[in-house]
Amino acid sequence: MDNKSKIKSQKLKWRQTLILCMCYVSAVYSAPALSRNEPAGAVWIHYPGDYEIWLGNEMQNRRTERGAFYPPFWKMDSHYVLVDFLKTVELSQAEEIEIYAEGRYTVRMDGRYLYDVRGKMTVPAGTHTLVIKVHHQAAPPSILVRGKTIRTDATWQVTIADNQWTDESGRPYDVSSAASRHPNAAASAFDDPTVLPSQYRMATMPQRAVHSEEKGKGLLVDFGRETFGYVCFHRLKGHGELNIYYGESPEEALATATCETLDRIPVDHSTPRTLTLDDSRAFRYLYIEQDPGLAFDSVTMLYEYRPLEYRGNFRCNDELINRIWDMAAYTLHLTTREFFIDGIKRDRWVWSGDACQSYLMNYYLFFDTDVTTATILTLRGKNPVINHINTIMDYTFYWFISIYDYYLYTGDADFIRQYYPRMKTLMDFCLSRRNANGMMEGYPGDWLFIDWADFPMSKEGELSFEQLLFCRSLETMAVFARLAHDDSQAVIYEQAVEKLKPALFSAFWSEEKKAFVHNRLNGIPSQQVTPYTNIFAVLMDYLDASQAQTVKQRVLMNPDALKITTPYMRFYELEAWCKLGEYTSVLKEIRNYWGGMLKLGATSFWEKYNPSETGTEHLAMYGRPFGKSLCHAWGASPVYLLGKYYLGVKPEKEGYKEFSIRPKLGDLQWIQGNVPTPEGDIQVYMDHKQIKVKAGEGKGTLYFNSRTKPKTDKGTVEPDGTGYRLTIVAGEEYSVKGSF
Amino acid sequence: MDNKSKIKSQKLKWRQTLILCMCYVSAVYSAPALSRNEPAGAVWIHYPGDYEIWLGNEMQNRRTERGAFYPPFWKMDSHYVLVDFLKTVELSQAEEIEIYAEGRYTVRMDGRYLYDVRGKMTVPAGTHTLVIKVHHQAAPPSILVRGKTIRTDATWQVTIADNQWTDESGRPYDVSSAASRHPNAAASAFDDPTVLPSQYRMATMPQRAVHSEEKGKGLLVDFGRETFGYVCFHRLKGHGELNIYYGESPEEALATATCETLDRIPVDHSTPRTLTLDDSRAFRYLYIEQDPGLAFDSVTMLYEYRPLEYRGNFRCNDELINRIWDMAAYTLHLTTREFFIDGIKRDRWVWSGDACQSYLMNYYLFFDTDVTTATILTLRGKNPVINHINTIMDYTFYWFISIYDYYLYTGDADFIRQYYPRMKTLMDFCLSRRNANGMMEGYPGDWLFIDWADFPMSKEGELSFEQLLFCRSLETMAVFARLAHDDSQAVIYEQAVEKLKPALFSAFWSEEKKAFVHNRLNGIPSQQVTPYTNIFAVLMDYLDASQAQTVKQRVLMNPDALKITTPYMRFYELEAWCKLGEYTSVLKEIRNYWGGMLKLGATSFWEKYNPSETGTEHLAMYGRPFGKSLCHAWGASPVYLLGKYYLGVKPEKEGYKEFSIRPKLGDLQWIQGNVPTPEGDIQVYMDHKQIKVKAGEGKGTLYFNSRTKPKTDKGTVEPDGTGYRLTIVAGEEYSVKGSF
Repeated sequence: MDNKSKIKSQKLKWRQTLILCMCYVSAVYSAPALSRNEPAGAVWIHYPGDYEIWLGNEMQNRRTERGAFYPPFWKMDSHYVLVDFLKTVELSQAEEIEIYAEGRYTVRMDGRYLYDVRGKMTVPAGTHTLVIKVHHQAAPPSILVRGKTIRTDATWQVTIADNQWTDESGRPYDVSSAASRHPNAAASAFDDPTVLPSQYRMATMPQRAVHSEEKGKGLLVDFGRETFGYVCFHRLKGHGELNIYYGESPEEALATATCETLDRIPVDHSTPRTLTLDDSRAFRYLYIEQDPGLAFDSVTMLYEYRPLEYRGNFRCNDELINRIWDMAAYTLHLTTREFFIDGIKRDRWVWSGDACQSYLMNYYLFFDTDVTTATILTLRGKNPVINHINTIMDYTFYWFISIYDYYLYTGDADFIRQYYPRMKTLMDFCLSRRNANGMMEGYPGDWLFIDWADFPMSKEGELSFEQLLFCRSLETMAVFARLAHDDSQAVIYEQAVEKLKPALFSAFWSEEKKAFVHNRLNGIPSQQVTPYTNIFAVLMDYLDASQAQTVKQRVLMNPDALKITTPYMRFYELEAWCKLGEYTSVLKEIRNYWGGMLKLGATSFWEKYNPSETGTEHLAMYGRPFGKSLCHAWGASPVYLLGKYYLGVKPEKEGYKEFSIRPKLGDLQWIQGNVPTPEGDIQVYMDHKQIKVKAGEGKGTLYFNSRTKPKTDKGTVEPDGTGYRLTIVAGEEYSVKGSF
Repeated sequence: MDNKSKIKSQKLKWRQTLILCMCYVSAVYSAPALSRNEPAGAVWIHYPGDYEIWLGNEMQNRRTERGAFYPPFWKMDSHYVLVDFLKTVELSQAEEIEIYAEGRYTVRMDGRYLYDVRGKMTVPAGTHTLVIKVHHQAAPPSILVRGKTIRTDATWQVTIADNQWTDESGRPYDVSSAASRHPNAAASAFDDPTVLPSQYRMATMPQRAVHSEEKGKGLLVDFGRETFGYVCFHRLKGHGELNIYYGESPEEALATATCETLDRIPVDHSTPRTLTLDDSRAFRYLYIEQDPGLAFDSVTMLYEYRPLEYRGNFRCNDELINRIWDMAAYTLHLTTREFFIDGIKRDRWVWSGDACQSYLMNYYLFFDTDVTTATILTLRGKNPVINHINTIMDYTFYWFISIYDYYLYTGDADFIRQYYPRMKTLMDFCLSRRNANGMMEGYPGDWLFIDWADFPMSKEGELSFEQLLFCRSLETMAVFARLAHDDSQAVIYEQAVEKLKPALFSAFWSEEKKAFVHNRLNGIPSQQVTPYTNIFAVLMDYLDASQAQTVKQRVLMNPDALKITTPYMRFYELEAWCKLGEYTSVLKEIRNYWGGMLKLGATSFWEKYNPSETGTEHLAMYGRPFGKSLCHAWGASPVYLLGKYYLGVKPEKEGYKEFSIRPKLGDLQWIQGNVPTPEGDIQVYMDHKQIKVKAGEGKGTLYFNSRTKPKTDKGTVEPDGTGYRLTIVAGEEYSVKGSF
């Protein structure tokens, strides 16, 4: 499933000017390729999803708060500690193989234990079945086997139940996903036998500070913009404690008593030498205070990053929008690590609701499917299910919905089929918690998040928002059940949707307010109209044209309606505006809201932004003066909005087998950019007189309006409602002229 | 729940002569007590059952076969890697506490994270809630906290879901079991903060060989009897490979090409020093061959054992029976380790069917409840259930039945209630696999074991034996559901029994054969009568008096019936003979069968014994010349039979609240012995003229027959059917005279 290499070899010859040059990114491109050992093709394999769960535990348990360990508060699962790997080989001649393992292993050939395997063995000519069984507690049991023809790869099978080579639902499967979807695979082919899987790390490169100055008893160091990595002290000498206070703002770094992260490092260097800290942190500023007995020459850092190709891009005539797109892309890059995380300073955790948005942005920027599936798998964990994902009911539903997005953008039906049992058991958990009305209310310990809001919002009774997401999750599961050939279960999901969808309207649609109300308690609907259900009903096409218009007027575009203050929910709000045709309004909002952060000096986008706040108010959150994350994945949504609604590209069938292009200028003079697809990309240019498109794969349709009769240099423009359409054949470049 | 210390302090003043002196055992008693740190009472605690699962993985993955790693073939589970521990304290004055953890931890007090805890902190006066959260992947997260009044103990709570202090079924619980039931607790109070839980090991003591002689190119060393531990070479010097071949027999040790276990150790000692091997092994003989460059002075070993008190004992006028009892006790001691294992040489695995018998023997010998619950928990593993326990259907059923035995002998209802959810989910798995007749047949991957037999035995269709065990398991679960206050579920189990029990008879009881037939395939009962179902129907009181008599005549005591050849099934067969009153026949069988092994020079009892075999035929099994285990737990059943059916002691209500004593001489002149109970013991003496009994607790009834009118020095003898009964009050010694 990994098409990276194919894509990397494609030359983007068309409109080279589109290629965005960002200093850090170009450096990533020029980093030397990691050495790969021969023969190619042998990779570390493990039980599907186990590496992701293990790595999720490792990464999320790296959070500290003022030096103290700060682990996640949800249940964390573990890998299987005893795993069998199987391969049947047919050899025309005997072959020597090397066996590498993370864990203690034993080899059976044709059912017989081999007593003298010490990392090497000879497989005789003929047909033979090899089974390698590995035990390891501290990290997932893994193997890498390589010979002339025998290599661990997607054709090996895996099991935790001796001689039962089936998945959780009893169907045969292989470890193809395990082999190709390694979360760090973007950094390496995961094929180095000298590096155990648990030892793989992300890439690093040195970065220098842009400014340093003495402040009080210490030194304030500025790295120029938000960054992430390991601080290095050069020619550090002496005995004493080194105190490093990290800040996303200078105020935070200088606030030694209240900054969110710090390190206190005991040093005992008799001769000057470099000290690189063990833990990576997020910061722009460092404030360093040391004991009098300590001295160092300079401070640099090792930037730690996921090597990613910027496959999507966007440019237009408005430099503010371009700057916003660039910073959104950088924000998404910083938060795209072993997994998609929320913010790099504080949590460094994987949250389903946040990730769901990162996935969508990723489809318009990196199209990195490894990090997407890794995030989906670590969020899911293992059975039995005892809590919602991240303990949040809405986050469970986003998990289902995000997998549908994954399927739509990538066409990866194998992934759906392989992990369908885990989807089904999570949905079983939801179904078992329905109330007498077939709706889901919070159980003790459940968190009903929806959004951080500045107005009071009830979480009691049946929340319309949760039922809406639940209904879409059930629709999603019906699709997956069909894909997994579990037709009887698909019928169960379809019937549940047929009951729940009308119940949504009868319970929560207010004919008086012409909108969905917030909740129903003891059978009585509330009078409060919050934006959330209404936004999502638009996005999910649950409303008819008339309902959509009243929702637009009374809720979405109503200046007196309740206000959203997080970029998290703004993501969906602005997407709904786009769906309702408000392209100019959305650009205006992007300029105001994201441009507002830029004006305040942001170098990445924030967890929350309230234009009415001033000064250090912008840094506070959760009752803490520097509690707010200034680099938060959900702040990067312009990448998604500009790609999907201005370049106008989206898949209509899974994996871009069919797609549509609906380019929109809004108030811009021209736009141009690339949208990545599984095996190529789609290139779009538009100004008031010309639209140019080219697609690398799939069957596309360009939809547009024109005040004059349009002309094309290829194909046939046909009328489509009040506008026009043009069929796009892969590999062909189209130019349409008209008045747009 | 741990009454060990109380019991150890009781002096066995009555009939001191009963105390059995075994050289190894007395040495265990005299071993110096492990140092215990102050204050007493603070113990390592962890998530209930997790240590047992982790230790089970560690121990069972120690198996090797001819030097190669040989892991179990069933699914192995893992501990939870992120665990919260909670305690609310009320302090009249501030108190400093020390915190020890296996894993990385963080402390919250009254909901607030504490940033500066470095192994110590002060809890202020007043009421405070402490939550310590620990992450550890390689071993179970554990803590030990101690202060003047604050100590980790049975009153702390534990959870894997933040702030939800409930068990798997949503009910609140504490970690009392986790704290008191540590599998190694017999070796240590598990209260040493300087030893992390994962570092605890069983006890060791040096042992010397009794004989050495040069044989061929090497040295044959005899340790005098079956033993277990780490081989030590003294003043070992030189460079080269040391090859150690282990044997339970001299033939095995000398068979360098086919012995079951061996070690090949590279040595590079420039000066002479002791080498103690890293891995412990089972053996009586060593055959050592070394490279010419190596020399050593002598070979000894470190015997590795679970320190156990021989609380039960048995003596009679027949020295052969006494020797058999001693050797059975030693066999059980060798196989009672971190868990009850099957054999010490080969598997070192935990098998539910084997363990079920070890538990029963243990109630008449060590009464070690720690090893019992540890074994039950590691066998169960975690959810989801995907296979039968050890993959064997009968072994799943033995698991349920053995927990009922545990409850009956110990009265430990807390254990039942705490782990009821795991029992229920395992039974859910069984119930989901019933066929249209409500019976259980094998699924692919299921092993239907029953017994090793020398005659052909079908495993197809519905096996009567499996249905019988299934029915008893359902009866057991009905009891547990009531104990756990899950009454609606109890009704489900009771209804299942009401259906299955009559179906057993209608499907398998043959009026022609007056016995149960073996199986039913495609609705047609087989004509084969195997002993198994018939034996268990007697043991479970499923037969009426007339059925029991025909089963006895036609199957159990019929010399032409199919023969049992394993001590495993002989256990149940002889118990059924006892139940049917064949006391003299059973003694005869014990003398023949176990005495037969003694005559062949056994120093512990074997996995299988066939009197018709000769010479090295006795060593072979599984098609391998030394495949048979010569120290197998299921060989120790005389300990159980002599305690339960000759001393005649058994609980009638849980935990010996009520009990019965039915002493029987069989063909013996006198018998005497002790049977341990939770808080004391029951002492019995009988000859043809006198019965003496004394009980440390509970309400007992002595049942006996007498040819003359019996007299007692205390209480009142009352008629009971054709015999008599006498009520036994705890602490009183009774002497009854008559003609027995």
